[in-house]
Amino acid sequence: MRTALVIGTGLIGTSAALALSAHGAEVHLADHDPQQARTAAQLGAGTLTAPAGPVDLAVVAVPPAHVAATLAEAMRGGAARAYLDVASVKGGPLRELEGMGVDRARLASYIGSHPMSGREKSGPLAATADLFEGRPWVLTPSRETDTEVLNLALELVALCRAVPVVMDPDAHDRAVALVSHMPHLVSSMVAARLEHADEAAVRLCGQGIRDVTRIAASDPRMWIDILSANPAPVADLLSEVASDLQETVRALRALDSADQDKRLAGTAGIQSMLSRGNAGQVRVPGKHGTAPAAYETVAVLIDDQPGQLARIFADAGLAGVNVEDVRIEHATGQQAGLVELMVVPQAAAVLSTALRDRGWSIRA
Amino acid sequence: MRTALVIGTGLIGTSAALALSAHGAEVHLADHDPQQARTAAQLGAGTLTAPAGPVDLAVVAVPPAHVAATLAEAMRGGAARAYLDVASVKGGPLRELEGMGVDRARLASYIGSHPMSGREKSGPLAATADLFEGRPWVLTPSRETDTEVLNLALELVALCRAVPVVMDPDAHDRAVALVSHMPHLVSSMVAARLEHADEAAVRLCGQGIRDVTRIAASDPRMWIDILSANPAPVADLLSEVASDLQETVRALRALDSADQDKRLAGTAGIQSMLSRGNAGQVRVPGKHGTAPAAYETVAVLIDDQPGQLARIFADAGLAGVNVEDVRIEHATGQQAGLVELMVVPQAAAVLSTALRDRGWSIRA
Repeated sequence: MRTALVIGTGLIGTSAALALSAHGAEVHLADHDPQQARTAAQLGAGTLTAPAGPVDLAVVAVPPAHVAATLAEAMRGGAARAYLDVASVKGGPLRELEGMGVDRARLASYIGSHPMSGREKSGPLAATADLFEGRPWVLTPSRETDTEVLNLALELVALCRAVPVVMDPDAHDRAVALVSHMPHLVSSMVAARLEHADEAAVRLCGQGIRDVTRIAASDPRMWIDILSANPAPVADLLSEVASDLQETVRALRALDSADQDKRLAGTAGIQSMLSRGNAGQVRVPGKHGTAPAAYETVAVLIDDQPGQLARIFADAGLAGVNVEDVRIEHATGQQAGLVELMVVPQAAAVLSTALRDRGWSIRA
Repeated sequence: MRTALVIGTGLIGTSAALALSAHGAEVHLADHDPQQARTAAQLGAGTLTAPAGPVDLAVVAVPPAHVAATLAEAMRGGAARAYLDVASVKGGPLRELEGMGVDRARLASYIGSHPMSGREKSGPLAATADLFEGRPWVLTPSRETDTEVLNLALELVALCRAVPVVMDPDAHDRAVALVSHMPHLVSSMVAARLEHADEAAVRLCGQGIRDVTRIAASDPRMWIDILSANPAPVADLLSEVASDLQETVRALRALDSADQDKRLAGTAGIQSMLSRGNAGQVRVPGKHGTAPAAYETVAVLIDDQPGQLARIFADAGLAGVNVEDVRIEHATGQQAGLVELMVVPQAAAVLSTALRDRGWSIRA
């Protein structure tokens, strides 16, 4: 790929442009907000001059609602050999494009895509060439998409050092509803219960509810855009959760019953719910695609002196142990805490012994 | 406190006995399983001989369903000046005790309590004197509880280095339903959606769903015991979540409507849900009782070489910056990752500059 046009110089567009430029491609930048395009150009993402002829790849990085119109316009002008968008939903833009009467030859030059690299910040100033590094980048070719266009998209993904995943557009939308949109709304609903809770109750919060509600801190405006583009798959999944909830409420009420059979049925209902949760949780990939259960935890007590974490990691390094993940647990209002080091099972005993030898308190 | 009797030598009982013994108290151990009591004694938790007369404090650390009967029996024998249990629910045991016809004088010698220090492991071998360190330990005196009994309980909490929190028994049960039991079940329901999901969808899981579903990995048997002792408050909260869910499903369906007014009403409904989630999430205490939003994140790119974390923490230490929390994010199947260091806002720029100077790639 030697030439590219990036339309929309927000976080994603500018990050892709930076990666393309870093690999020697000639990148042209366009944005309906000229100031934003200038900022991207100043960051080294590319040039503001229009391309002299069709580029190899046009990357459309505008909000989901504007994707189809922007693509159609670029196609009409013959801007590129291949067109790719990066919107977080894929079924809608494709159907819109088809509905606009774009001909088959032009549809063949289009491939949908979704780089899964969210950030809290937006705009060109938050962009970085390594934004996509190691993250999945979904490609959703339609039946019309040319192989050459797929290969140009794969080249972009490779030079952004992302991991390509090919999916059907509607399967993609159901997948992100499952792994992102539905959990986000459910997290908000758990967090919402705390809005008017007693302060004494809130003080009892531990790491469990902290983890469950973390993503409920996100910006509602951004999430309304995301959910508006994918309402049906999210609603379907929430309905499934609602039906599990109703069954669980019935099972809990049965536990209060005077009737032994009802109590047993209640217990069985809750057991089944929790076991299904176990079975689903174990599929969530951890680091390197392994389930979290594949690691053992070595828990080290610390107080809040600066440098304690550095010493723990340095001591782990001296013992030749690679720490796979780490979690710091602190009690509210306290200076003492627990550092949980996740290591491969065969390293757990080595690490415990090494840290004990160096004077750390290890929880058995 | 000079003498204590610990009835039930599992994780909590043995840990409390170890802390009491470490502070010079004479601790007597009892368990319906003599082998378990012997193990606790071998760990240095106390003696297996029965006390010669009433002890200062009897700690009843048996499963919730057996608490009232065990307390009543110990009281009938005049085992102690004060009695305390450690069950994870508090309303039920007290009502059961009152229902057993225990007289007012004896009820005055009882105080309920709940140390909030769960572990994945159970039994005396998992016990440690520092299990309770820095964690909340709820005390639920009834109107009958003597001040002297409350003070003995506070002494136990202090020597276990836990943080005492005094609450009404039923308020406690509603609080743990809110901050622990309800989130646990909801986490299971989100995880359950993954049980039969396509592998391609599961590959797209990121840190969000990983956090939301982490606690769904727990042992169903333990959770059935917990939920069976507190069904009504949990069912009430789940019903609230169910009603939020139904409203959100309706709002999402409205987003698909051809009618502009319906779409606007749908957007407003989702906006309100997400905003309530924001308002609740911000109340979840982070480390030292501050909200997570009080920290800024410095994100450092790493590859998977051993010792990288040690070097980052060492470099942060050299810069005089105390890292408050840390999160390691890895893409599935990849060797590259991101270390997010949470620091107080005034330290973020210092840390970024110091790490950049030492050759780290910092995400802006």
